[in-house]
Amino acid sequence: MEKYMSRAMELAERGAGFVNPNPLVGAVIVKAGRIIGEGYHERCGENHAEINTFEDAERRGEDVSGATMYVTLEPCSHYGKTPPCADAIVEKKIGKVVVGLLDPNPLVSGRGVAKLEAAGIEVVTGVLEEQLKRQNEIFLHYITEKKPFCIMKTAMTLDGKICTRTGDSKWITNEKSRVHVHETRHRVSAVMVGVNTVIADDPMLNTRLEGRTASDSVKIVVDSAGRIPLDCKLLNMEFEKETIVATTDRIPDEKLKAIEAKGARVIVTPEKCGRVDLPRLMAELGKLGIDSVLLEGGGCLNFGALRENIVDKVQCFIAPLIIGGSESKTPVEGEGFDYVREGIAVSDLEVSNYDGDMLLEGYIRRRQQCLQDL
Amino acid sequence: MEKYMSRAMELAERGAGFVNPNPLVGAVIVKAGRIIGEGYHERCGENHAEINTFEDAERRGEDVSGATMYVTLEPCSHYGKTPPCADAIVEKKIGKVVVGLLDPNPLVSGRGVAKLEAAGIEVVTGVLEEQLKRQNEIFLHYITEKKPFCIMKTAMTLDGKICTRTGDSKWITNEKSRVHVHETRHRVSAVMVGVNTVIADDPMLNTRLEGRTASDSVKIVVDSAGRIPLDCKLLNMEFEKETIVATTDRIPDEKLKAIEAKGARVIVTPEKCGRVDLPRLMAELGKLGIDSVLLEGGGCLNFGALRENIVDKVQCFIAPLIIGGSESKTPVEGEGFDYVREGIAVSDLEVSNYDGDMLLEGYIRRRQQCLQDL
Repeated sequence: MEKYMSRAMELAERGAGFVNPNPLVGAVIVKAGRIIGEGYHERCGENHAEINTFEDAERRGEDVSGATMYVTLEPCSHYGKTPPCADAIVEKKIGKVVVGLLDPNPLVSGRGVAKLEAAGIEVVTGVLEEQLKRQNEIFLHYITEKKPFCIMKTAMTLDGKICTRTGDSKWITNEKSRVHVHETRHRVSAVMVGVNTVIADDPMLNTRLEGRTASDSVKIVVDSAGRIPLDCKLLNMEFEKETIVATTDRIPDEKLKAIEAKGARVIVTPEKCGRVDLPRLMAELGKLGIDSVLLEGGGCLNFGALRENIVDKVQCFIAPLIIGGSESKTPVEGEGFDYVREGIAVSDLEVSNYDGDMLLEGYIRRRQQCLQDL
Repeated sequence: MEKYMSRAMELAERGAGFVNPNPLVGAVIVKAGRIIGEGYHERCGENHAEINTFEDAERRGEDVSGATMYVTLEPCSHYGKTPPCADAIVEKKIGKVVVGLLDPNPLVSGRGVAKLEAAGIEVVTGVLEEQLKRQNEIFLHYITEKKPFCIMKTAMTLDGKICTRTGDSKWITNEKSRVHVHETRHRVSAVMVGVNTVIADDPMLNTRLEGRTASDSVKIVVDSAGRIPLDCKLLNMEFEKETIVATTDRIPDEKLKAIEAKGARVIVTPEKCGRVDLPRLMAELGKLGIDSVLLEGGGCLNFGALRENIVDKVQCFIAPLIIGGSESKTPVEGEGFDYVREGIAVSDLEVSNYDGDMLLEGYIRRRQQCLQDL
């Protein structure tokens, strides 16, 4: 059972970067120990995984009646952009359905299963549940919180530095780690930096993946006083997705108009300690359908984001290198907390080795609660 | 064969902290698939592992003639503090000897094996060699370099801080990590700190291990200008091992005499950029029979040690906690290197999980060469 669900999960993964703010969903149909159909949700607004799987079986000339369907997320029971998948499953005379995760939306959770059971179909639920929750952590967060899932990414040396005292940072991390960052950019809806990064590095923040189609992300610049250079790449290059400048009333009117004239969206929040109100910004981004943000801030924005509690997950790359320097910059700066006991705990820390760089990933505890309570 | 060598390695480990500057050595004697004797080198100046193993077999009333001996290090062939073990093995009519590592001392390497073979004993070498090199990394370094193997230990948050901006560091790491530090102190001959640590924290630097005998270490304070407070614990408490103050000519005469009057040893090196000449200090420590130093410096001493190339291994604890702060201290400070490409590479990075804290251990590349060349 886990073997087929695992395959469905693999298929689901192919939708990463293209389905947001929908979930990643994959499905397989098995008959007499043989897979006779495979599919996944490929792109937001298009077919659900189940429908693509039926179409695949049909293309193969297979008869799905009496077969078992493995699907990573509970089939929907309501009319959305597409008709209910539960109805299609009944109509196709599927004999048994194995469901990974129940629908996390409390208003409809369990209804898909109920509909199938009412039609006499055997249903099993909760297969590979933990792995599937992890795979859909963005969706599970967004559907319940209506705010983007925020991943803070940092990259430092073994002695905690993001650059030398002269500002040199090329390259702290290796090629494989940098590819992983682009894979994460591909997966999320938006990438966020502070204006100091734009002034210092003039980054493109686009997604570059060798040999496959990359999904570009919305680019967000947090710029409380409207200091963004009008000639920066983010305001002048052509990107697939828009650029958003988040600011406060401190921005001069002409600057705001000049940014909009460049085609960027400006979001003005009330000032919070003289800065952009980050929780308010996240709520606004959520309303725009942005389900996830990769925060690639400098130390100042990172500290603000952590203090304002908008960060859900941290991805810390650590390179096997020591550069020293009492004046070298570190990944989280700002004022900092006065005491260790006030620090922000990271839970479920896991390590992966990227060609010698170590990636430490974990969750901000308070936020993680939301996922665990599902 | 690996099973018995593994057991011999376990036995060898029991000597850690007590045999320095000798190697850790363990042995077992096997006859007809049954272990009939076990032993290890227990304390510097006392019996070698082979002799203790023969005595164990005798106590058990076993006949070792024709048996196989597994020993982690090549039996000695020369008269040191004890007679040659190779002779004892021949005399006891052992039938076969399985050796882990050959003696790393180029002057005698292979002679023990030759002596055994000349007496008609079958010898196998190189079993579990890599693990045994790691177990005896201190000895292998000291015997070839005549200078202590230096382990730099740091403990920081996930954002690279060793304390908050107010200096609070209690506790960044958890209980299990702190116990590990005491195990390392137990294993090494000396612990080294900078005078700023003595002024700020007045540490004891002793070894505390619950429920078992801990071996105290020599305590070394690097104090270029003679600023150590005469009333500090290191100069006033009774310890098993001595305290050494490493300084330069900048120390006032009376201060030097006052330190010696407290019973501490003073080592004066020429100034190197106004500071203690660390490579010279390491050579002096080597002459005193100190085979290993655990460097628990602040950021300034750590950077000096790395720049002066006296560090062989790094142990970096990383706690799942973020405290931020542009003014919070980091594990390696000083001036730092100007460019990433000048940074010090750490090789063979390995990760262990200590109840949620991550321990990243690796070797400083140039130094590691010495071990690999063995």
